[in-house]
Amino acid sequence: MTRSIRCAFSTLISNYKPAIQTIQELLQERLSTATSVLNQHGIDESYHSCVPPDAVAFVKNTKEISQVLEICHQYRTPVIPFAVGSSLEGHVSALHGGISLDMNSMNEIISVEPENMCCRVQAGVTREQLNSELRATGLFFPVDPGANASIGGMVATNASGTMTVKYGNMKNAVMGLTVVLPDGRTIKTGSKTKKSSAGYDLTRLFIGSEGTLGVITEIALQLFGIPEAEKTMVCSFDSVRHCVDACTTIMQSGIPVARMELMDEAAMNAINKYSKMHHPIAPTLGIECHGTQSEVAEQSDMIHDILNDFEARGIQWATSLEDRKRLWAARHTAWYATMNQLPGSRGLCTDVCIPMSKLTDVIAETQEDIRKSGLLGTIVGHVGDGNFHVMIPFHPEDKNLMVRVKEFSDRLVLRALRVEGTCTGEHGIGNGKISYLQLEHGDALPVMLSIKNALDPRNIMNPGKIFYTAEK
Amino acid sequence: MTRSIRCAFSTLISNYKPAIQTIQELLQERLSTATSVLNQHGIDESYHSCVPPDAVAFVKNTKEISQVLEICHQYRTPVIPFAVGSSLEGHVSALHGGISLDMNSMNEIISVEPENMCCRVQAGVTREQLNSELRATGLFFPVDPGANASIGGMVATNASGTMTVKYGNMKNAVMGLTVVLPDGRTIKTGSKTKKSSAGYDLTRLFIGSEGTLGVITEIALQLFGIPEAEKTMVCSFDSVRHCVDACTTIMQSGIPVARMELMDEAAMNAINKYSKMHHPIAPTLGIECHGTQSEVAEQSDMIHDILNDFEARGIQWATSLEDRKRLWAARHTAWYATMNQLPGSRGLCTDVCIPMSKLTDVIAETQEDIRKSGLLGTIVGHVGDGNFHVMIPFHPEDKNLMVRVKEFSDRLVLRALRVEGTCTGEHGIGNGKISYLQLEHGDALPVMLSIKNALDPRNIMNPGKIFYTAEK
Repeated sequence: MTRSIRCAFSTLISNYKPAIQTIQELLQERLSTATSVLNQHGIDESYHSCVPPDAVAFVKNTKEISQVLEICHQYRTPVIPFAVGSSLEGHVSALHGGISLDMNSMNEIISVEPENMCCRVQAGVTREQLNSELRATGLFFPVDPGANASIGGMVATNASGTMTVKYGNMKNAVMGLTVVLPDGRTIKTGSKTKKSSAGYDLTRLFIGSEGTLGVITEIALQLFGIPEAEKTMVCSFDSVRHCVDACTTIMQSGIPVARMELMDEAAMNAINKYSKMHHPIAPTLGIECHGTQSEVAEQSDMIHDILNDFEARGIQWATSLEDRKRLWAARHTAWYATMNQLPGSRGLCTDVCIPMSKLTDVIAETQEDIRKSGLLGTIVGHVGDGNFHVMIPFHPEDKNLMVRVKEFSDRLVLRALRVEGTCTGEHGIGNGKISYLQLEHGDALPVMLSIKNALDPRNIMNPGKIFYTAEK
Repeated sequence: MTRSIRCAFSTLISNYKPAIQTIQELLQERLSTATSVLNQHGIDESYHSCVPPDAVAFVKNTKEISQVLEICHQYRTPVIPFAVGSSLEGHVSALHGGISLDMNSMNEIISVEPENMCCRVQAGVTREQLNSELRATGLFFPVDPGANASIGGMVATNASGTMTVKYGNMKNAVMGLTVVLPDGRTIKTGSKTKKSSAGYDLTRLFIGSEGTLGVITEIALQLFGIPEAEKTMVCSFDSVRHCVDACTTIMQSGIPVARMELMDEAAMNAINKYSKMHHPIAPTLGIECHGTQSEVAEQSDMIHDILNDFEARGIQWATSLEDRKRLWAARHTAWYATMNQLPGSRGLCTDVCIPMSKLTDVIAETQEDIRKSGLLGTIVGHVGDGNFHVMIPFHPEDKNLMVRVKEFSDRLVLRALRVEGTCTGEHGIGNGKISYLQLEHGDALPVMLSIKNALDPRNIMNPGKIFYTAEK
């Protein structure tokens, strides 16, 4: 099946002008081919090189997207959805040229229904914009991947983040979608209910499909009540084993923590240097509890006992918003602090997720591997979910260093797969992890490909992502 | 696309003998064509008529299923997975003949990993068997559809039930699957982690696919710790509006109830007669809280206040297992009590799910409709999820009554769809709700069909379910 996609694609690569001209007639000045605009749309926040599209279409609504896709389908021209560009695996690179579909004007919060604890938004709405507009309702949207990503992009990569340990990821948060199919047809999936068994679950098929099956234009989201009380804790440990063991013990005790974040000693060192702080250079755990006053008090007591069992040091608790922000400040700068170790660098961010029983071993082995490799890697992680990131700065022109980084990443993914983990907990496959997906789901990959072929037989939707689709 | 499936199928319907003979060589005495065995495998617990298969294959493991499917694929012979037969929409009827695949011997609990709070089971393991074997670990599997269904069947229909309001349904509980594809290939989906963004979500595509895409043979399930404390409440109301409004208020307050079950006055009347009890003949609500002692105490206090606001009567709370069972006893007999109103009857069980803000109106309108129709319908429901069932006894040979029941069901589904609800919260489409699926997801149905065609191009997997696939 790989072959059929490759063939379908490789015959078509040189014929994008008719599509661009037709779309220009439709969108007028909202179709751009200016070099600066193209370059801005060909790169994300990761190490992947800029691969600009041939044109950028600034679309305003579902109907326009339907028209653009109909044109691109007719002329077999690739389409790459784009909003914030905060993805980390080259998702927005125009590997085979074509049209970047800029969704940033689609930033309307269509409806908020407090009585159903849900809302409906256009795909270009960002996470922070949504939470800002929700504040008056007493509700919030909990999926927080760090970046101020668009909701559409978060659906496309099945994003999660620091609060997923309590509130779930996009698979849990999305109730339904409006999707424009590759040939321009528009469908609605899901319903405004908490559950449904009505046919195949197209909602969750599109979540995590990374723009390869259609364009997500509207999203119905489940919301949560802002908790009555929130309490944050930070502490450090004498070893990463004690730190992660404390975390897995808390999880296995069934305490419903809202956040559970690890920063290893290398991360703390980088953060101290970057922010001119004096945190202990030791494995550090940040935990947050949400609930009623008494729930939060009870949970934090139980957590405190477990932390003491693992000889946690310098335990600090905070309940006011200001103090809690201060405790989380270190975690928020970790990426920039890590990159700062090598000025002018770009970064790789690994994304394995591990069964809880193996998490301590895998993190300890990975730390040892970083040391042996001589890389400037730091570890942060949503360890309540078993998900952690190694962030490694490097200069892409330093080919020798890139090879060492790639080899390290390969070893880490193999380590994860050996214990039945996954190569990606929340960032997706994009262009950067295709070989890992083949390792992880080699047997199931033909089924994924047959779905891709069925829904996008001309392979115009974000080609080159999730699957290899043409010779590069 | 409907047409292409119909054509593919209708040319093939008379040629099952070669498959049956070849499977008999493989399974020997474990392939049965005895009339009593065929009849037992052609019917579920609902009103749907018995449509027996041509043979029943009693399979023992994934490899055998793969061999059987390879044969059926070669000879274009339908395959219908079967275990307990507790489904409610004709899922197991052999509408186009073929082989019923009896999974009851595949009842091994392959592994339990308390440290990862998960287990792996063969598809024929039943829910009660699993919880019985889990008891010593302090863990339990919370999805409870009432019937002692097989886990495989529960995956196939995306089952949920009384505890879904807190613990989620099969979409949340399943971490991964082993699936035999229609041509005999075997794949594994998912991983032993809490989340993954590795490619298309095949796990959730197979959940709710009702045996139409492949045979689910093994399931990895997430488990939960048995709560420290459980507390059950039952009370009644002077009107169904007060009853359902109390329920939606509790849900909107964010109280994490573990069960929230409605029985309307007709249900209570039928239960009293059936069980010779003297419950108030009034809309009745059962609620259960799970958590630590103090969480449960706090939740029950908050619930009590809300119930009083809605003038609840005769509020009874229980914490001991024995007393809690006594409070739930009425709910457990509701189906049999309803059928008992018309001796010798079979029953229709509707399954709409409604956005919480519209639940009170829809239930009140539905009660009025039952009264006007002169049907013996009773209402029970997982109202914390917005899901409720109208159970209606009738004699299938009473054609006039069947028409009235069908017209009532049609009106109920239209009422649900008008408020963006769904025709099925947990029972699935089967053969009974195909026209409702077309109403609900007419625009998305061609996408579902294209996936069906891609994965099962010969349409051998449970044909006639979810989609019309041949003239009857």
